[in-house]
Amino acid sequence: MIQAKIAEILDSNQFLQEFEVNGWVRSFRSNRFIALNDGSTINNLQCVIDFENFDQDELKRITVGAAVSVKGTLVESQGNQQRVEIEVKEFKILGDANPEEVKLTILSPKRHSLEKLREQAHLRVRTNTFGAIMRVRSKLSFAVHSYFQQNNFHYVNTPIITGSDAEGAGEMFRVSALDMENPPKNEDGSIDFREDFFGKETNLTVSGQLEGEAYAMGLGQIYTFGPTFRAENSNTSRHLAEFWMIEPEVAFCDLDGNMDLAEDFIKYVLKYILDHCQDDLEFLDKRFKAEEEAKPKADRSGLGLLEKLHFVIDNNFKRVSYTEAIEILKNSKPNKKKKFNYIIEEWGADLQSEHERFLVEKHFKCPVILFDYPANIKAFYMRLNEDGKTVRAMDILFPGIGEIVGGSQREERLDVLQNKMKELNIDEKELWWYLDTRKFGTCVHSGFGLGFERLVQFVTGMGNIRDVIPFPRFPGNAEF
Amino acid sequence: MIQAKIAEILDSNQFLQEFEVNGWVRSFRSNRFIALNDGSTINNLQCVIDFENFDQDELKRITVGAAVSVKGTLVESQGNQQRVEIEVKEFKILGDANPEEVKLTILSPKRHSLEKLREQAHLRVRTNTFGAIMRVRSKLSFAVHSYFQQNNFHYVNTPIITGSDAEGAGEMFRVSALDMENPPKNEDGSIDFREDFFGKETNLTVSGQLEGEAYAMGLGQIYTFGPTFRAENSNTSRHLAEFWMIEPEVAFCDLDGNMDLAEDFIKYVLKYILDHCQDDLEFLDKRFKAEEEAKPKADRSGLGLLEKLHFVIDNNFKRVSYTEAIEILKNSKPNKKKKFNYIIEEWGADLQSEHERFLVEKHFKCPVILFDYPANIKAFYMRLNEDGKTVRAMDILFPGIGEIVGGSQREERLDVLQNKMKELNIDEKELWWYLDTRKFGTCVHSGFGLGFERLVQFVTGMGNIRDVIPFPRFPGNAEF
Repeated sequence: MIQAKIAEILDSNQFLQEFEVNGWVRSFRSNRFIALNDGSTINNLQCVIDFENFDQDELKRITVGAAVSVKGTLVESQGNQQRVEIEVKEFKILGDANPEEVKLTILSPKRHSLEKLREQAHLRVRTNTFGAIMRVRSKLSFAVHSYFQQNNFHYVNTPIITGSDAEGAGEMFRVSALDMENPPKNEDGSIDFREDFFGKETNLTVSGQLEGEAYAMGLGQIYTFGPTFRAENSNTSRHLAEFWMIEPEVAFCDLDGNMDLAEDFIKYVLKYILDHCQDDLEFLDKRFKAEEEAKPKADRSGLGLLEKLHFVIDNNFKRVSYTEAIEILKNSKPNKKKKFNYIIEEWGADLQSEHERFLVEKHFKCPVILFDYPANIKAFYMRLNEDGKTVRAMDILFPGIGEIVGGSQREERLDVLQNKMKELNIDEKELWWYLDTRKFGTCVHSGFGLGFERLVQFVTGMGNIRDVIPFPRFPGNAEF
Repeated sequence: MIQAKIAEILDSNQFLQEFEVNGWVRSFRSNRFIALNDGSTINNLQCVIDFENFDQDELKRITVGAAVSVKGTLVESQGNQQRVEIEVKEFKILGDANPEEVKLTILSPKRHSLEKLREQAHLRVRTNTFGAIMRVRSKLSFAVHSYFQQNNFHYVNTPIITGSDAEGAGEMFRVSALDMENPPKNEDGSIDFREDFFGKETNLTVSGQLEGEAYAMGLGQIYTFGPTFRAENSNTSRHLAEFWMIEPEVAFCDLDGNMDLAEDFIKYVLKYILDHCQDDLEFLDKRFKAEEEAKPKADRSGLGLLEKLHFVIDNNFKRVSYTEAIEILKNSKPNKKKKFNYIIEEWGADLQSEHERFLVEKHFKCPVILFDYPANIKAFYMRLNEDGKTVRAMDILFPGIGEIVGGSQREERLDVLQNKMKELNIDEKELWWYLDTRKFGTCVHSGFGLGFERLVQFVTGMGNIRDVIPFPRFPGNAEF
């Protein structure tokens, strides 16, 4: 008797061998065919029951959602839906699932909306779609770690609770252990955060970059991969209040090296998924196709899911300066015909999603890296070019989702950085330690940030970012 | 000319080859020998300068902490401190480090206390000790992921911000976007959290276990590895307010399987570190030895750092029931002679660190797994034994640090779980989704939690947990 996972059994050639397998019932047809799933694969194991030989009361307990242990013999399947199946010799109900109660949940075997599935996020992982997404997400995480470790990057856990609030990357959540109903106050009526747990006001991090830079100045090349937060009230399919971010940072590396790294990294992880998640991707590819076909023609992406992955892996990312991109956009049909919501009129304009998608999907027809943006639409720490008006920033734009990576070469010159901070009213005292990295052996260095959920969206083809993280956090929702 | 990292050059046999290498100056002796480090290894590269051939003003800029780019030829070293060295042909100062300012920091070449290093956590990674710790930490993280991925566990990101507060694992930090000076209030004067970002009161997670269980009920076997938080005002060398936790959860697995998994997992990751971090471990082993020798004899651990690692890998963990352990402790010398601070008098007592260390270090002389604890000193979700008074909990105890793993088989029976929750006044409405996992195909399942920093402490031999995480968070400290 071999105790095995369904993924192993489906690959096995040990015919006539006895197996023991546990799982949950996905369906039970004709009082005869159990489709069993244990999460190890998207595919179910067909377990065939000779119902005349079993107790009828026990057979009635084989219902959708029930946990069952099965012992039986591996044989070639008679049906053409599967290669192998198990002839059941014994089965045991481990945990029932009352059909009347199941009916009220998303476990019931019918089509449920993604919204409904989200409301039962603790159960949705038992569906084909979410099982596939979450297995792909797991493998994609491992691909990220594997890439950086193979290339001798050191993983760094930058702090989640932070006392720095000068990064300006967005609105933050406050973290406090004070009694909110009756907080200690200063004489002027403001909260006395000296009494709080950390002796100062603290927030949830919006980025580990600045701490990552300090570490790159010692360890050479590092990456972070951890949760980051935004308290922005944006109820869109592209934003989460809590999401995971990957941020490599490399000493002695300029913007060109940074672009090379980002492109190589993305191609590696996509290739890894193609190699390791075939069954799940095939399912998601079909799902994507069906979703696309339900859309009006103009909104369809043109490429299938697997085609999009190959498209990114097989094409060199086109590198285009912001200035070139503005020229292209200014002279583009949708701009001239005023089809864009935001008409591009002059250099300095911030690009919108519609412009990014035009460049990627219509003009270049490949992933695009835009670089050398106007200084005043980018962050304070980006390296100023000799022209005095652009910075060494880069964004990578993808078909369908737009910006997937944002990065830059960092301003390594202490005096230029200080001037910039003064200009933007960023208090030097807040970032004394960040400035130290420019005082003691400063050097050219670069890095980027990649929102992990955007990547999972791209790989799984899911339209809403809330569907690629187990328990999404967004305005009005922190259930589970 | 080969652009290379120092770790590669130190391993190279390409004599007479020209290399270009960037790094930070660790020392500059006799106007001739630069010890250069780039973070790729704990070992420095000796770069030999024929000072007569270089500009004196440039040579003066080669100071401790400066970033330098060196071009030169790989030769066998004349000295016996190193196998190879670089004969410098060109060098370029990339970033100076003013010696007067360096003197005020921990970069200055003298012995600094760990407390002082902690105050400059952004610079301490440039020291030998912290470079080694953080490289080991990175490799250990990857070992964790590698183990679980190889064994077909799925990585799950459980939520950081949580609306559940029923776990009872400790005091929590509140997360809020409300204006603390002027929060919306209900008629009774309490805070109206319906106005907050998530429409309810939210906190930072203390554990991903409950969500992990829900996922194990779909994906079969999962693990989490993410930050967790405690707002406990414990200013000790064993506690952090923010720390990383690893929590596997396995469906169809009982407590014995859980112990097997934990033991196999720990041995794998320790073995991985022995195989992949030799240079750093050798350094830390020497450091540990020196620290031990400075202690009074009675406080020394007896084993060296590497010896401790081998000790854990080579020994079977001794499995002992709580009841047996109490008997051993009751009859032990320190208990009879009243040497323990807490004298063990009867069954039911909660074990203190002194008792755990006695069992591991004096009595069994090997790692110990204690199991079947009294129900009333353990959490609500642990499976009740048939005796009605013990639960299927287990703790793994290690030499030197005591408890490193806490786990259990979970209560899979809906009615027993509900009774327990009622007994402890845990609101079923708060955990409706958790109870669902027992309603729909419940099954035997188990898991454990391992505080990652405790593991890093064990592997690096660091006495204070604040020294094994880049930017530690503890009462009064959220700097950087």
